[in-house]
Amino acid sequence: MLVVMKHNATDQDIKRVVDVVGDMGYEARPIPGGQRTAVGILGNDGRVDSARLEGMEGVLEVIPVTHPYKQVSREWREENTVVALANGTKVGGSDVVVMAGPCAVENESQIMDIAHQMRDLGATVLRGGAFKPRTSPYSFQGLGLRGLELLAKAREASGLAIVTEALDPEGAEAVADFADVVQIGARNMQNYALLRRAGRLGKPVLLKRGMSATIDELLLAAEYILAEGNEKVILCERGVRSFDTHTRNLLDLTAIPVVKALSHLPIIADPSHGTGLRAKVTPMARAAVAAGADGIIVEVHPDPARALSDGAQSLYPEQFAELMEQIRVIARAIGREVAAPLPAVAQG
Amino acid sequence: MLVVMKHNATDQDIKRVVDVVGDMGYEARPIPGGQRTAVGILGNDGRVDSARLEGMEGVLEVIPVTHPYKQVSREWREENTVVALANGTKVGGSDVVVMAGPCAVENESQIMDIAHQMRDLGATVLRGGAFKPRTSPYSFQGLGLRGLELLAKAREASGLAIVTEALDPEGAEAVADFADVVQIGARNMQNYALLRRAGRLGKPVLLKRGMSATIDELLLAAEYILAEGNEKVILCERGVRSFDTHTRNLLDLTAIPVVKALSHLPIIADPSHGTGLRAKVTPMARAAVAAGADGIIVEVHPDPARALSDGAQSLYPEQFAELMEQIRVIARAIGREVAAPLPAVAQG
Amino acid sequence: MLVVMKHNATDQDIKRVVDVVGDMGYEARPIPGGQRTAVGILGNDGRVDSARLEGMEGVLEVIPVTHPYKQVSREWREENTVVALANGTKVGGSDVVVMAGPCAVENESQIMDIAHQMRDLGATVLRGGAFKPRTSPYSFQGLGLRGLELLAKAREASGLAIVTEALDPEGAEAVADFADVVQIGARNMQNYALLRRAGRLGKPVLLKRGMSATIDELLLAAEYILAEGNEKVILCERGVRSFDTHTRNLLDLTAIPVVKALSHLPIIADPSHGTGLRAKVTPMARAAVAAGADGIIVEVHPDPARALSDGAQSLYPEQFAELMEQIRVIARAIGREVAAPLPAVAQG
Amino acid sequence: MLVVMKHNATDQDIKRVVDVVGDMGYEARPIPGGQRTAVGILGNDGRVDSARLEGMEGVLEVIPVTHPYKQVSREWREENTVVALANGTKVGGSDVVVMAGPCAVENESQIMDIAHQMRDLGATVLRGGAFKPRTSPYSFQGLGLRGLELLAKAREASGLAIVTEALDPEGAEAVADFADVVQIGARNMQNYALLRRAGRLGKPVLLKRGMSATIDELLLAAEYILAEGNEKVILCERGVRSFDTHTRNLLDLTAIPVVKALSHLPIIADPSHGTGLRAKVTPMARAAVAAGADGIIVEVHPDPARALSDGAQSLYPEQFAELMEQIRVIARAIGREVAAPLPAVAQG
Repeated sequence: MLVVMKHNATDQDIKRVVDVVGDMGYEARPIPGGQRTAVGILGNDGRVDSARLEGMEGVLEVIPVTHPYKQVSREWREENTVVALANGTKVGGSDVVVMAGPCAVENESQIMDIAHQMRDLGATVLRGGAFKPRTSPYSFQGLGLRGLELLAKAREASGLAIVTEALDPEGAEAVADFADVVQIGARNMQNYALLRRAGRLGKPVLLKRGMSATIDELLLAAEYILAEGNEKVILCERGVRSFDTHTRNLLDLTAIPVVKALSHLPIIADPSHGTGLRAKVTPMARAAVAAGADGIIVEVHPDPARALSDGAQSLYPEQFAELMEQIRVIARAIGREVAAPLPAVAQG
Repeated sequence: MLVVMKHNATDQDIKRVVDVVGDMGYEARPIPGGQRTAVGILGNDGRVDSARLEGMEGVLEVIPVTHPYKQVSREWREENTVVALANGTKVGGSDVVVMAGPCAVENESQIMDIAHQMRDLGATVLRGGAFKPRTSPYSFQGLGLRGLELLAKAREASGLAIVTEALDPEGAEAVADFADVVQIGARNMQNYALLRRAGRLGKPVLLKRGMSATIDELLLAAEYILAEGNEKVILCERGVRSFDTHTRNLLDLTAIPVVKALSHLPIIADPSHGTGLRAKVTPMARAAVAAGADGIIVEVHPDPARALSDGAQSLYPEQFAELMEQIRVIARAIGREVAAPLPAVAQG
Repeated sequence: MLVVMKHNATDQDIKRVVDVVGDMGYEARPIPGGQRTAVGILGNDGRVDSARLEGMEGVLEVIPVTHPYKQVSREWREENTVVALANGTKVGGSDVVVMAGPCAVENESQIMDIAHQMRDLGATVLRGGAFKPRTSPYSFQGLGLRGLELLAKAREASGLAIVTEALDPEGAEAVADFADVVQIGARNMQNYALLRRAGRLGKPVLLKRGMSATIDELLLAAEYILAEGNEKVILCERGVRSFDTHTRNLLDLTAIPVVKALSHLPIIADPSHGTGLRAKVTPMARAAVAAGADGIIVEVHPDPARALSDGAQSLYPEQFAELMEQIRVIARAIGREVAAPLPAVAQG
Repeated sequence: MLVVMKHNATDQDIKRVVDVVGDMGYEARPIPGGQRTAVGILGNDGRVDSARLEGMEGVLEVIPVTHPYKQVSREWREENTVVALANGTKVGGSDVVVMAGPCAVENESQIMDIAHQMRDLGATVLRGGAFKPRTSPYSFQGLGLRGLELLAKAREASGLAIVTEALDPEGAEAVADFADVVQIGARNMQNYALLRRAGRLGKPVLLKRGMSATIDELLLAAEYILAEGNEKVILCERGVRSFDTHTRNLLDLTAIPVVKALSHLPIIADPSHGTGLRAKVTPMARAAVAAGADGIIVEVHPDPARALSDGAQSLYPEQFAELMEQIRVIARAIGREVAAPLPAVAQG
């Protein structure tokens, strides 16, 4: 438990908190910080009564043991974290960032074509899976290393930054060699070996919320990455499991303002996996921006009917173009801007 | 309807299924497949009871193909239903309608003040509970008939249309005498006696989705009202039960485009109950409009800290004013308009 | 909030609690009881710190505001409530009570036949719906009053007590005229007009848990009935909504020991609605008894394939006979007995 | 697979679906119906990707008929799989197997003491975590390799078989060197790299259901292990995420008979994690046996109040002794036996 003092708390205020904690049978340890002092409680078995402390002079708030994340919390760091990608894209600032591309890299012409289209329509990050986690062992599992090479080629040609998924600790190293952002998927949100490795890669990480993860669990998964020294974490809401069968998942857009209040990390939304249905992607992408998301990640395929995976939830490029127009207006309605398109790449 | 047979079902098993289907007055068509046979049922008008088939020898599962609702479905009627209220407000057309007001009518000055503020800020419908369904029998249950009278007075003074909840069949008659729209709350979504009475009132009905109702169940509840001859039904997404405790409910905004594809009825969203938290109401109201809602219903209270119910989720009037500005822009981004403010009421 | 004192707390202990509450800015009101004194806290806005009180001499426990039920709680009344039915069946004592019969009363020979079979196999209560709540307005809705008359006739012939559902306040009066136990179904668990009427009927009430009701909400619904003066309430776990489509609902058997710790009311389980699948009814009925349920309510039909409703989840009489054998052994394993069969009815 | 067309689909739409199905290498058979046409797909071996069809013009929905798992299914293999452990324990036969022990191995005397107690009370498998997956990076993470060595020592002294969790592919090798059964925890149920490695270890695997995994997903996760050549898989129900906060998870005991109908693999239940509350473990362990589980895995700690993890859900040894008595009777009620206690280990 952490007692956060007001920035103008006096030494006397802090001393009184320390005394009360001692009175409760625990040890208090003041932690002076840049803006304020916090008082940690040692030996807390989870039964410390926060209410007794909350009312004291000079106390801003008491962070209970049931929110055991620290470094990811806004209490720890008040200003938004802005994750800067190699091509200049900034996630978590005032820009709304658009990441787009196919579910999976299928072949060179597919990924090169879509990269150019996405760039021309205003996306600044290209998504595309090389390693695909599939519910069935018999489904298409991605091109693997060859997929990573094609993504790197697409980046060179288009200027887009690359985000692609890593499935296990060793794979994460390979992905980090090629990609600008290492994605950890929903199924692996609590794969702690992978989270720890991601924390040591030095590359930005896109961490997707697990299928039934609470928001606290999402933040604790991010805490694993920060605890290894990597603060460049982008969270992603992608829908949670629910009971209605009309959609693949239930996109929990309220998680966006909830996370932004609890944490300084950026959060984007994935309306493609969040709905599983092409016709619902555009309205929910708009809604995500209206709800305050720092970006969206959207599946677009040049020929969805022939996609090797997730075709039913991929937009046609024309639909994506219309979506871009709409979210430009919506972003402005709340004082933000969709990130500016990339400059044209010099053609050798 | 499709009856899927087990892979080791015998010819005798299949014949018995065919016979039972014939017995029900329909035609059965066996479809032999690679691994198993399926039996299609032709001419099914949606009234086949699958239970009789599910328990039969050799049957693996019965898959419904026809949706059980009819009059509410877009297949039944392709054009949007537009529900016109007495003060000219139209729900379900190109306008985005704003309904606003306190959770409960508390006294005359409260409801009169807020009515004028809501009208001046651009709402065209006033919400306010006279009969309150409360989880505990010991909580404030509303002013009852006196609340209805005050709502009528507020309508006269402001020009706003009135929406308020009915809790039981008799109450529905009283509500219909005073209100422009009779609300059926989430807890009563499958209160069939109340739905049937609402279907005979001749007044528009606002039907809220139950706390864990599927979209099909919501549409079937509406079907009860239409089946009694009342087509003036407005659906409302207000959040479903989920596992995260940061919010009161999980607002399922994807339900909006899903319902609009399945049904011709208008659908609005309630971000106040859908989140339960004042700070999340504005982003989720914006998101609802961006997702294509035909309107929003929002709790606003002149002094939320002293509200007799739901204070924690009520907006301050200033917050509501800012929300109106934002959704005017967002509505235009998708080719709609927030409904024009009402003309000033002539002061005798 | 209620501070429950130990039964041997001294006047001095109680005075100290009163003083501390005053110190907190609230008013304390001691409530002397048969076994112990409780101290109520008036003016509590929900922020009273229970921990400060919990540690005091003579205090047994502090019941927080977030459990706003009172009369249904074990704190209010320590001994189990035993609901006695007219035919001598006692629900909530050491006996495990079996209620069985068809989903719906369909005609005289069906209900008379099944009543005799159920009695002969050892059930002591007959279930059978006269008024059926159906998701679709076009499904079979029950025989109504005629169904009630047939149930009464079956009772006379068999000696079984009758449980059947009421759908609305007026219907509840009619049901109470004929039945021994008035059932309130899952869809109506928060139909407060119906709950209040049930509280004034003077007949035992079987209250089913709503489709996504928390245990606290179930207890609060029961509180509505007790608040009207009727303590004869039997709770029923019947499955909650979840995400897996293999079963109709997710039977939450852990709710049984949870409810028994929180409340003095009896609780039974409905494995028929809780699973929706005949082949799962027997194992889950056994599991319910093993988990400590005070009884089970099971659908049995003489010819499930021709049942007008719920055929797929109805046991054949032979299956029911086997189930009875198994639960007799299981009940004994935990020191209980399946209620003794009724004596033969004298044949005029 | 069945492709259901919209009621207003054109002949052209239907023809295109037929062509695409042919293109995929299967045969399409249109089934004209009363309201709409459906197109059956013949010869589908379970590898058809529905997404390609779902997005096509005129298609209402695509309904899978073939279950995507194969080797785990009872259609593939009718007889129960019996997993034999090194000490003679057989999981999946007529015996009900009891696995018991502490959440985590804490030190030598703790694990040796509890091993002897568990053996004497009739368990045949010892559980105990060496590598602990923890939601927070700051919680106790287990003794690691030292924990495995202590488990091996406890096995030698007690004769119990050992089950302990592996968190990642490399760890799985280490675990397999020491343990009799390699556990894959709920958080890792879809960690495909780990599943594949587990499939190549040659050791029995205990696979726990993910926190919100459907039963089909659980079976598909097992399919990953069988697809690598390892058939020795024991499934485990351990509770799914739900909305009630009284328990840690919602133990879905109906999954037991559901899995046993779909698959030949054994399934056990974990009432400790499934409830999270000591007082609910015993009733739910009994219920699991009554529901037909092939075993239970229960946390028992010599001093739960001082346990380094999961103390609140660990039984005292005396409680475990009483539970063993009860389940011996319950197992017999359904024609099974709790596995016979191990013979005493020869003391050198």
